[in-house]
Amino acid sequence: MTSGPERPAEFETIAELFRPLTGGAPEARGLLDDAAVLPSRPGQDLVITKDAIVEGVHFLPDDPLDLVARKLLRTNLSDLAAKGAEPYGYFLAVSWSGRCGLDERAAFARGLAEDQARFGIVLLGGDTTSTPGPLTASVTALGWAPHGRTPSRAGARPGDLVLVSGAIGDGYLGLKAARGELRGLEPERVAALARRYRLPEPRGVLARAVRDHASASADVSDGLVADLGHICAASGVGAELQLEHLPLSAAAKAWLDHRADPVASLADLATGGDDYEIVCTARPEHAEALIRAGDKAGVPFAVLGPVTRGEGVRVTHAGAPVAIARPGWRHP
Amino acid sequence: MTSGPERPAEFETIAELFRPLTGGAPEARGLLDDAAVLPSRPGQDLVITKDAIVEGVHFLPDDPLDLVARKLLRTNLSDLAAKGAEPYGYFLAVSWSGRCGLDERAAFARGLAEDQARFGIVLLGGDTTSTPGPLTASVTALGWAPHGRTPSRAGARPGDLVLVSGAIGDGYLGLKAARGELRGLEPERVAALARRYRLPEPRGVLARAVRDHASASADVSDGLVADLGHICAASGVGAELQLEHLPLSAAAKAWLDHRADPVASLADLATGGDDYEIVCTARPEHAEALIRAGDKAGVPFAVLGPVTRGEGVRVTHAGAPVAIARPGWRHP
Repeated sequence: MTSGPERPAEFETIAELFRPLTGGAPEARGLLDDAAVLPSRPGQDLVITKDAIVEGVHFLPDDPLDLVARKLLRTNLSDLAAKGAEPYGYFLAVSWSGRCGLDERAAFARGLAEDQARFGIVLLGGDTTSTPGPLTASVTALGWAPHGRTPSRAGARPGDLVLVSGAIGDGYLGLKAARGELRGLEPERVAALARRYRLPEPRGVLARAVRDHASASADVSDGLVADLGHICAASGVGAELQLEHLPLSAAAKAWLDHRADPVASLADLATGGDDYEIVCTARPEHAEALIRAGDKAGVPFAVLGPVTRGEGVRVTHAGAPVAIARPGWRHP
Repeated sequence: MTSGPERPAEFETIAELFRPLTGGAPEARGLLDDAAVLPSRPGQDLVITKDAIVEGVHFLPDDPLDLVARKLLRTNLSDLAAKGAEPYGYFLAVSWSGRCGLDERAAFARGLAEDQARFGIVLLGGDTTSTPGPLTASVTALGWAPHGRTPSRAGARPGDLVLVSGAIGDGYLGLKAARGELRGLEPERVAALARRYRLPEPRGVLARAVRDHASASADVSDGLVADLGHICAASGVGAELQLEHLPLSAAAKAWLDHRADPVASLADLATGGDDYEIVCTARPEHAEALIRAGDKAGVPFAVLGPVTRGEGVRVTHAGAPVAIARPGWRHP
């Protein structure tokens, strides 16, 4: 782990805040070296993803930094889960803004520590610096998977089924809740949605089932319609998304009860993004295995419709086509 | 490779600018997947380093973005070289600032393409987003080395010799040159130093010799005295740095000729940072092999002094101690 300007202060930050996050992993070399050194694992593939966040773009300026750090980790872990990989470790680059005093930096590290323990990963290296602009951070997350078993986005075939894990739309509603824009719901439901937005739940419990049974897979970050569209484009197929089968949380169902146009509102949930569920496709006989695995893990899979010939996602409700203005989502 | 806000525009950027940078490597999955997938190489270690840069902190706001991109790659490759690793690939996160139109983004990608070809690496994945602040980017660079053969900073022993590659001080002088603060030198020397600052030369040609013969190794980024100090601290030893043996470029020698206090000026060069040379230690019999390898590669190693008992770096000139105000360097 190296550091940029203001070396002495940064060096202290590294030593005090970040070194404990390595958990003593020999690969990290105590963050004292120029690089981390990871032995190969014969028969295994290393699955690597990298995501960056910017204050005011990907999170709200008053979001507590422990939650910001945890969300950053979790969005990367969501990518690993969608690829069927077991979380291993991560590299962190963080550019502290002017508002990041020692307390804020400690909160950021505390959030990392909490989620590291929860998800079984350690810090392997990285870089800290300062910035005159907004707080910016990136995580490069690493996971292992048996060689050649990582589902891509390109394996969907006509006749497969489209499945999605958990609940869709809580990311969309959660952002509204975090912004104070969600009216007419009980306060505890609003609080739960805001928490879900700030702290998504990566679906690592489904990783093994996904790599064993999915023909194609992606995490739902841009929006279900957009992310399923990426699978269709990469696979050269089309898909039907039947909105009546969209899995919803209790809070989303309560919200939907008050909407004037429920079908249009379902479409909003299906394009809202930030759900961090897994959307995948599977041959029908494998879909059953996925569904059993999801039930066993407490994160059920719902079947949304068939993979078809053609291209693009056809959104329907009770058999009728539903127009979609934009498949994906813009961050706040 | 994923993208943040303004999905459609970002998606185009990814497709047009970055996909060619994968060189068709199957690991990158065309930047269309949630993650890259890297098969293990039995008997090899993956060496990974991550560095971030911020406009106005690590580079000047009017620096051309092709050079900024190349320097970012090169500083990471310098870490790999110091660890004796062969460059393999990298992940990129870039947050485009308001000044980054399509031309600037294309320049950034062009710089990456140029140095990828030069150093034999490909883009494996990453993330692009926008920022209301300064341009910020990070690279996670990966290299391979035979298992267990990567020198750490902790292997120096009393009786070893301290060696450094190439020339020291051109980073310090190059920054002055780039800022227009270097007076009294011929214009072509000033231009050469500014170029050296903007475009350091990672010492990959020395990687194999370093892993075969060095007992400890680091790249010179913070400043020679500081980086040698990191080796001493990690190894639990001291070292003597004899300034009369500091290897200097022709431009640095010309600059030194005009200095009122040459010894103090040598100390400035030895603490100035941004040289991206390799400082290492070796048993005397291995030092000879390093020197031969450096000569053969056209990047000679200079012997700076002995590793000693005790702690810290003792800077001397012709046997007399030289006081060092600060061992390392603050970025502009």
